[in-house]
Amino acid sequence: MDTPIALIFDGSLRLADVPLPERKRGDVLIKVSLAGICATDIEITRGYVPGFSGILGHEFIGHIAEADDPALVGKRATAEINCACGNCEFCRRGLERHCPQRSVIGIVNRAGCMAEYIIVPRENVVEVPASIRDTEAIFIEPLAAALEIMEQLSISPEHSVLLLGDGKLAQLIGRALKPTGCSITAVGKHPHKLSLLRDCGIVVIAAEAFAPRPVYDIVIEAAGNPAAFHRALQCVKPRGTIVLKSTYAGSSTLDASQIVVNEITLIGSRCGRLEAAIAFLREYAPDLSPLISATFPLDKALEAFDAALRKENLKIVLEMQAGGIQSSPNNSSSSIRHSAW
Amino acid sequence: MDTPIALIFDGSLRLADVPLPERKRGDVLIKVSLAGICATDIEITRGYVPGFSGILGHEFIGHIAEADDPALVGKRATAEINCACGNCEFCRRGLERHCPQRSVIGIVNRAGCMAEYIIVPRENVVEVPASIRDTEAIFIEPLAAALEIMEQLSISPEHSVLLLGDGKLAQLIGRALKPTGCSITAVGKHPHKLSLLRDCGIVVIAAEAFAPRPVYDIVIEAAGNPAAFHRALQCVKPRGTIVLKSTYAGSSTLDASQIVVNEITLIGSRCGRLEAAIAFLREYAPDLSPLISATFPLDKALEAFDAALRKENLKIVLEMQAGGIQSSPNNSSSSIRHSAW
Repeated sequence: MDTPIALIFDGSLRLADVPLPERKRGDVLIKVSLAGICATDIEITRGYVPGFSGILGHEFIGHIAEADDPALVGKRATAEINCACGNCEFCRRGLERHCPQRSVIGIVNRAGCMAEYIIVPRENVVEVPASIRDTEAIFIEPLAAALEIMEQLSISPEHSVLLLGDGKLAQLIGRALKPTGCSITAVGKHPHKLSLLRDCGIVVIAAEAFAPRPVYDIVIEAAGNPAAFHRALQCVKPRGTIVLKSTYAGSSTLDASQIVVNEITLIGSRCGRLEAAIAFLREYAPDLSPLISATFPLDKALEAFDAALRKENLKIVLEMQAGGIQSSPNNSSSSIRHSAW
Repeated sequence: MDTPIALIFDGSLRLADVPLPERKRGDVLIKVSLAGICATDIEITRGYVPGFSGILGHEFIGHIAEADDPALVGKRATAEINCACGNCEFCRRGLERHCPQRSVIGIVNRAGCMAEYIIVPRENVVEVPASIRDTEAIFIEPLAAALEIMEQLSISPEHSVLLLGDGKLAQLIGRALKPTGCSITAVGKHPHKLSLLRDCGIVVIAAEAFAPRPVYDIVIEAAGNPAAFHRALQCVKPRGTIVLKSTYAGSSTLDASQIVVNEITLIGSRCGRLEAAIAFLREYAPDLSPLISATFPLDKALEAFDAALRKENLKIVLEMQAGGIQSSPNNSSSSIRHSAW
């Protein structure tokens, strides 16, 4: 029986043959076309999710290969990454993303998408319209996370917003903020990445030239390090809001008195609704192609992760389609696979 | 010329003769009747506000002795503690409490109320209706701080609220929360203080018997120590809110990832509108007398501060009225004063 390859993290990162995933009733089998490497994937390989072991990856686009409903087969789709119980208080409130019993694709107790096939619950499947290309669809999950900020916080044209960071997530947040009409200033360390934000009409300042002052209504921390939280506190106005967007291992120091005296609000913000991201891509059709730094076939996934670690790069994409996977004579686990399914 | 006594902090805490305060145009002179000792006063004596030097105290009730408008003289009044510029962005938005140029009565660059007389700007004066007794009026400022929570956050009957702390501020917060109809659980270390909260219809749990679980929609940190912030994080539901209410010297450790993954909102909450506290006292007439542990004449202010430091005590009140000040033969600076004004 043919077995697909997948990128596994089980203490170390490696390509491996994996059993063909077994679809149960209520689940859908998706043949993955493209998968994106996210900062969370890299954090997992650094031990950020201590319990995780299995196939990595949660950003993907593919085609449905098997489902209970034959009408679904062949549809282009991605999936909500939080797989919820459907019965608890959070699920009943429509907050499946916070279900305490949830598994999370490629992050918590569930195989991810850096493989030829992935199984997801039917209710997690989100169809993707044909007008959205694969190279945009790969951003649906992180763009939803960016748009989540606007679901938690009302942002309007009179707000001055400071965006800390110029990486993958910051790029999407900058673009997601534009339709609110707020004024946006981004601070980052990478001239090329800042220039991409400037191309979107965002004022950019190099980190070394930035003088923090408490003049921003909203500060969004998307730089992914504890120092950025302190920078956010230096820059937010009294009664202002700091949005914490990045997850990373390690702790910051919290001066509770500063938060109390200045009545700062701090909002943790994680995943968002994929439907909102799809609607955004259809309505605004932002050009996201500059955000893809390189595409690698799945059997070069280890090289792809090396590329994702390099500071100059933004999104690194893995290509799983049969035609895109090249043989690698020196690596028996990454030979050409033509699934019989 | 007669000079009043006052409680001064200038690195050490002491009673001293002070010059009779000089009223300028636009200011009002108030003869103080009662002043309350607040946790912030104690924190100041521990170096929490490094720059402060002068007369302590910001909770008071008194009578107007001099004003530009003679109709004000004799009125019973207290004062908003933040003295603002009136011109900046925050003042224009009605957020004088966040004016960056503000002085704060007894806290930042302005003499406090632990004296026979205090000068405050006319616009800070808040008249107190006769139906509110002095021993209730003394709580107007801290009750306003408690009610500020409801100005920042909508709390309704379906919310489960955890109140961490059983001290002065927690007692007022518990009472301020009652009309929202939410279910309230308070956790504290002092049986007598917990019993006062129980008398208000609040479920109380002794700290040593409390098992933290993430089941509360809202957690209010009013315990005044960094450990309580960690407790709050253990007890708040995903998508829940932590209100930070207490200021104290020192820092906590912030696990930003926990806040992001669970999309927690953290709200710093400080002073509130005195008018809201007056309206609350008129409408609900809560019995606040159990919250006053002792009353001392001003010339016993050092003993009063010692009493305020004792864990078993709640509010300690200083009495400035001429009749209430007793001579203290061993302390020349605290002899009987009968102002000629």
